[in-house]
Amino acid sequence: MTSPKPRHINADVRMRGFADRSTVEVATAWIDDVLPNFSALPVEQVALSDAAGRVVAQEIVSRVNVPSFPRSMMDGFALRGEDTYGATPYNHLQLKILGTSLPGEPFAGHVGPGEAVRIMTGAPLPAGADAVLPVEETELAETNLLAAGQVPPGKHVGQIGEDIRIGDAVIRAARWLRPQDVGALSSIGCAHVQVIRRPRVHVVITGNELLSAGSMASGFHIADSNGPMLAALVSRDGGEPLMSAIVPDRPEQIRAALAQPADIVLVSGGSSVGQEDHVPALLAEMGELAIHGIAMRPSSPTGMGRLGDRLVFLLPGNPVSCLCAYDFFAGRAIRALAGLDKDWPYRRRRARLTRKLVSTVGRVDYARVQVMGDELEPVSVSGASILSSTTRADGFVIIPADSEGYPPGTEVEVYLY
Amino acid sequence: MTSPKPRHINADVRMRGFADRSTVEVATAWIDDVLPNFSALPVEQVALSDAAGRVVAQEIVSRVNVPSFPRSMMDGFALRGEDTYGATPYNHLQLKILGTSLPGEPFAGHVGPGEAVRIMTGAPLPAGADAVLPVEETELAETNLLAAGQVPPGKHVGQIGEDIRIGDAVIRAARWLRPQDVGALSSIGCAHVQVIRRPRVHVVITGNELLSAGSMASGFHIADSNGPMLAALVSRDGGEPLMSAIVPDRPEQIRAALAQPADIVLVSGGSSVGQEDHVPALLAEMGELAIHGIAMRPSSPTGMGRLGDRLVFLLPGNPVSCLCAYDFFAGRAIRALAGLDKDWPYRRRRARLTRKLVSTVGRVDYARVQVMGDELEPVSVSGASILSSTTRADGFVIIPADSEGYPPGTEVEVYLY
Repeated sequence: MTSPKPRHINADVRMRGFADRSTVEVATAWIDDVLPNFSALPVEQVALSDAAGRVVAQEIVSRVNVPSFPRSMMDGFALRGEDTYGATPYNHLQLKILGTSLPGEPFAGHVGPGEAVRIMTGAPLPAGADAVLPVEETELAETNLLAAGQVPPGKHVGQIGEDIRIGDAVIRAARWLRPQDVGALSSIGCAHVQVIRRPRVHVVITGNELLSAGSMASGFHIADSNGPMLAALVSRDGGEPLMSAIVPDRPEQIRAALAQPADIVLVSGGSSVGQEDHVPALLAEMGELAIHGIAMRPSSPTGMGRLGDRLVFLLPGNPVSCLCAYDFFAGRAIRALAGLDKDWPYRRRRARLTRKLVSTVGRVDYARVQVMGDELEPVSVSGASILSSTTRADGFVIIPADSEGYPPGTEVEVYLY
Repeated sequence: MTSPKPRHINADVRMRGFADRSTVEVATAWIDDVLPNFSALPVEQVALSDAAGRVVAQEIVSRVNVPSFPRSMMDGFALRGEDTYGATPYNHLQLKILGTSLPGEPFAGHVGPGEAVRIMTGAPLPAGADAVLPVEETELAETNLLAAGQVPPGKHVGQIGEDIRIGDAVIRAARWLRPQDVGALSSIGCAHVQVIRRPRVHVVITGNELLSAGSMASGFHIADSNGPMLAALVSRDGGEPLMSAIVPDRPEQIRAALAQPADIVLVSGGSSVGQEDHVPALLAEMGELAIHGIAMRPSSPTGMGRLGDRLVFLLPGNPVSCLCAYDFFAGRAIRALAGLDKDWPYRRRRARLTRKLVSTVGRVDYARVQVMGDELEPVSVSGASILSSTTRADGFVIIPADSEGYPPGTEVEVYLY
């Protein structure tokens, strides 16, 4: 595709290489530049039980103290700390046991000098008591308590607001809610949470040759594999995939698909410069085709732009190119809009190549590899249409544009799918 | 809690420390030992669109070739390779263009010597043709093609079965399905996938003091925070949480909850050795209490055992202890049953402590930390009841049992929530 352009070209055919390609850096920078214009997704309310994994819209401030009453941190006896002064395993001090305080079932009376109340972890500290003597430092004599250790006032007592105080910011704005965050929200009485609505991502699959996902191939028609893959990627990245029927390679139908409401549009197929590649011209006509053609392999026929309030990504129809273009560009935008970390969600590790990885200066390569212990085996592929190369692969290695590749034995960073 | 046991004890009160504690290693080994007896979860069928993130029950073998017909890998012209021999940019060879082959719309005729068919990437190779000359190596003269380069037979042609052959194992048994795996399954005509059913995890929250999740605290009653946290953790780890109403600290009600159908039971609260800690005795009576009390902080009042065909985890009611005990033990079992990696799903990195972390030899510590650039700041906490310590924390550091902790400046491994 880097051969010289033909001197004469039939305009109808429109089959030619890209006039020039953007670098991966330029394309990424374009996304990061325009994203702020798209980042005002509306807020929606979800039940606490659906809040994990969502991104909170605004700081959540507690209207309550947690705990809202002094409570015991130990199983033992609530008492006045000064009544235990001098108590040791060899010098027991006797106190009168008045009753029991259990979680949710406090002791109703008052603890005076020389008195104690049996208390469980989490139970309210009775009035008059100021400390808890752990059960391990006690013995019993009939119905009386023998203190065998001493505790100062306040010891083993959880004070009001010790965990969370009224006015504390429990969750910062834009926090991705983890399981324990949901627990903390529950403890301050949040039954519902205001979260950023998931970005709605319209997945438009084009191709006259395509049957719906999971269909048996029939004649020269094959099942769409990009639709279910993209839907899973969008969900992983915090977006809500909106799927529609496969769109034939006809301008009027592609135009209608592009116009549907969404925050982001992903178009698979028809993204290059061939006879049936209508999408770039349509996007340029209807909105803005900002980037078309990227110096990378696979995925060079990738485009991106804007259409009204929608970010649009034109992804190659070849499944490996589609995955790679999604990973480099569309996924970044979706994660950013969703309020997640823009960077790849893949774990990284370092490992050593068993064979050389060849690239060409001026182009970024996305090389699929298998991980075998501490070694990386490049997955042999003959083209971007070989989706099984990504199912056999455990991850990928990026060869930057200024590199001709790596000799065998090089330690490189691998991103694990 | 490591104080000597009291010499006299009122049996009714049952308030004492653990007689002895298991190590984390022993508890983990117990889980790994019993898991094989629990790993026969049934298989269920899901639609392809729901298959990402699920674990396939058995190897999936292709019944079709992908592609099922020879196809072009380039935009260009399908022809007989030998007709291009000798063609260069300075020595054009002329061929007759018969028509066009598009994806899903093949050229119906036959390509003979001196003939060519315009072809798009992915389109079926017409009968008679054996190679594709890329458009960049062609020019047009009226309706004729001028070949300006040469290609051997087979060049730029994707052969039948090149991606996937009939009989190929496309997905191995027990594979966690990634987005591209779902794409590959679609391409071989799988509209449905047999996956391992998610482990059903009954989350039993006990405590007379507890109100349902998200309730406003009222008097001495507080909202349950462990239920929503555990539900989110179980979902994260591939399980299906089964939630029921909060169970009062009464043996007959706890007994009924333990008896409900599930693959795994998590009981929060009542797991220690205090007056209201009924759960361990009930599990021992109804089934097997294999481990009770673990040498770790927090979470020492953790138990585990079996009841019929259910694995049962007794988690402390204190929220931090509950999270930690889940992470160390219950999560491991759930992930394993679900067919996922047993190890923690947290990313790891190395960073340097800004302050010392103190521990006690003989006990594993789970220390919450904040990550600030390349530095780790321990989160100050006064007890296991401070759930906000985990919402403030970015992750945790494990201090092994044989360590007294780390001085400031030590580089340690941190697990990121």
